[in-house]
Amino acid sequence: MDSNQKAVLGIDLGATKIEMVLMDCDLKMKGRVRMETPTSLGPEKVKARILDKARELLRDPQLPLTAVGVGVAGQVEAGSGCVIFGPNLGWKNVPLGEWLRKDLGTEVLVTNDVRAATYGEWKLGAGKGYENLVCLFLGTGIGGGIVSESRLMTGSSNCAGELGHIIVKLDGPPCDCGARGCLEAMAGGKALARKAKALVKAYPASGRRIVEIAGGDPDGITTEAIVRAFREGNRLATLLIEEMKEALAAGLVSTVHALNPGLLILGGGVLDGLPELVEEMERRVRRQAMEAASSNLRIVRSTLGSLAGAMGAGAMALDKLRAPYLEQGK
Amino acid sequence: MDSNQKAVLGIDLGATKIEMVLMDCDLKMKGRVRMETPTSLGPEKVKARILDKARELLRDPQLPLTAVGVGVAGQVEAGSGCVIFGPNLGWKNVPLGEWLRKDLGTEVLVTNDVRAATYGEWKLGAGKGYENLVCLFLGTGIGGGIVSESRLMTGSSNCAGELGHIIVKLDGPPCDCGARGCLEAMAGGKALARKAKALVKAYPASGRRIVEIAGGDPDGITTEAIVRAFREGNRLATLLIEEMKEALAAGLVSTVHALNPGLLILGGGVLDGLPELVEEMERRVRRQAMEAASSNLRIVRSTLGSLAGAMGAGAMALDKLRAPYLEQGK
Repeated sequence: MDSNQKAVLGIDLGATKIEMVLMDCDLKMKGRVRMETPTSLGPEKVKARILDKARELLRDPQLPLTAVGVGVAGQVEAGSGCVIFGPNLGWKNVPLGEWLRKDLGTEVLVTNDVRAATYGEWKLGAGKGYENLVCLFLGTGIGGGIVSESRLMTGSSNCAGELGHIIVKLDGPPCDCGARGCLEAMAGGKALARKAKALVKAYPASGRRIVEIAGGDPDGITTEAIVRAFREGNRLATLLIEEMKEALAAGLVSTVHALNPGLLILGGGVLDGLPELVEEMERRVRRQAMEAASSNLRIVRSTLGSLAGAMGAGAMALDKLRAPYLEQGK
Repeated sequence: MDSNQKAVLGIDLGATKIEMVLMDCDLKMKGRVRMETPTSLGPEKVKARILDKARELLRDPQLPLTAVGVGVAGQVEAGSGCVIFGPNLGWKNVPLGEWLRKDLGTEVLVTNDVRAATYGEWKLGAGKGYENLVCLFLGTGIGGGIVSESRLMTGSSNCAGELGHIIVKLDGPPCDCGARGCLEAMAGGKALARKAKALVKAYPASGRRIVEIAGGDPDGITTEAIVRAFREGNRLATLLIEEMKEALAAGLVSTVHALNPGLLILGGGVLDGLPELVEEMERRVRRQAMEAASSNLRIVRSTLGSLAGAMGAGAMALDKLRAPYLEQGK
């Protein structure tokens, strides 16, 4: 099959690491590489690093490149692939699509990293075969992606799916986005750690174990430390996790009522420590949501893990850029 | 133009009234009628009433009927047009589509009334030309509809768009849907009246004027009475309206973050009393929402008013049922 003799490169560009996968046109993986992002050196150095590694990856299977897909932690202009704003990368108006197009001599699609991961889970992971699904990735922040009638929702300015910023608590804590009481500000990893730091200072006796696990410094508390203390039965950690679950359930109920998906996929680092969230959220959503909207809903865990973004970006690039070619070639 | 010589009937079937419009295939209105719903007499009598009026409406312009669209206040099975559950009508598993199909001898499409109204505003009203929009109808309850990339969202079990049931306040007041703190339970007309009744009993001095306007009986308080007292500067009414606005703004911010629509259309009876809500919500959403999601957003008022549902149901029936015919005929 001729089209399989070509390769697509999928890149997940985050502020701390870059995942890169090489796939054939049937989306079988042919190679992968993971590296740290030289964020502090600026966008040109990040690009150079990506190019080095891409050429390395392309050398081995000797497949000519037909398309490149990049998922970036930031807001992207759909057509040009310009990164308008990537807060954690520190990027503003970086013409990443143009740069890579010129240097690699091929079509390049740039999209948001969470949308890319949603596309990956839909096409290659837990969401295969579904027409209506929602992905929610729980990490430091909370990101989302929506597939409606077999199309990835983009919205009017390419930023649909910001489900971490649905408001679940009027007058709740301020969120980095500027609003208050967003799901991310109530249940994201960063918010959880922030809340824990305040609580262990207010209640040093109850918080002692969390601080110990964090290495003795309240300011060093991470989600992992909270989860470990929770597993040991620490009451403060239990309270924090329970409040996080309540907020998450409310966010999922809102999502189910607004979008009526057939499948909800939960992913992200927080699930590594709390895999039971999947079953628990299914139970809570079923109890709280309208039956009509939730009776045929399933909640599952993502299956591609940290590769969802890179694989999804590659798959999306192939679908969007190479579709006419594939239709002829296969 | 041959196809214009045929007619489509659009019906908006609510628990208190039925709106019916007759349109040609260019969706120009040729007749309309409004009647009370004989809800207490049961579904067969409601159907008979609809048929009588439909035949009356069809007699005059002498146009042969090509399709019928019905929007029903309830949950509808997409294919058959069976009304699975219409709580306010008191209907369960009423085969309305089948009945009308047999009696009128034409294709019949049955859908949810709010989705029909959204379709109407999109095709014929405030949303003409938009590819991504959201309608929110504020009445006794709060209903919504979503258009994404020029398609009305249905979701996996035909009930996407229940935006009245996104949760804006964790642990807020119980909602009729079974959850707590839903937008409808915070900002719907029924919830507002319920809250007013409790408050005027707790604070008789502050509430005296609202009770007076309501005719002397706290249990007779309606949204209209609250709005009138608010206009007079009554402090309790002002508090109630302000809290309603806060909840509504939170619901709209959530909607904008999740769906990134280019247009938000507000409709429903509550806007008749509070038309300033449109401008005020635009201001609040712009202040609270992420710039990327809201910079090109407009918030406007619906333009079809109480005819949105009937016109939308007719337009949808024509598009879904007669599309092949139209493509040949025009």
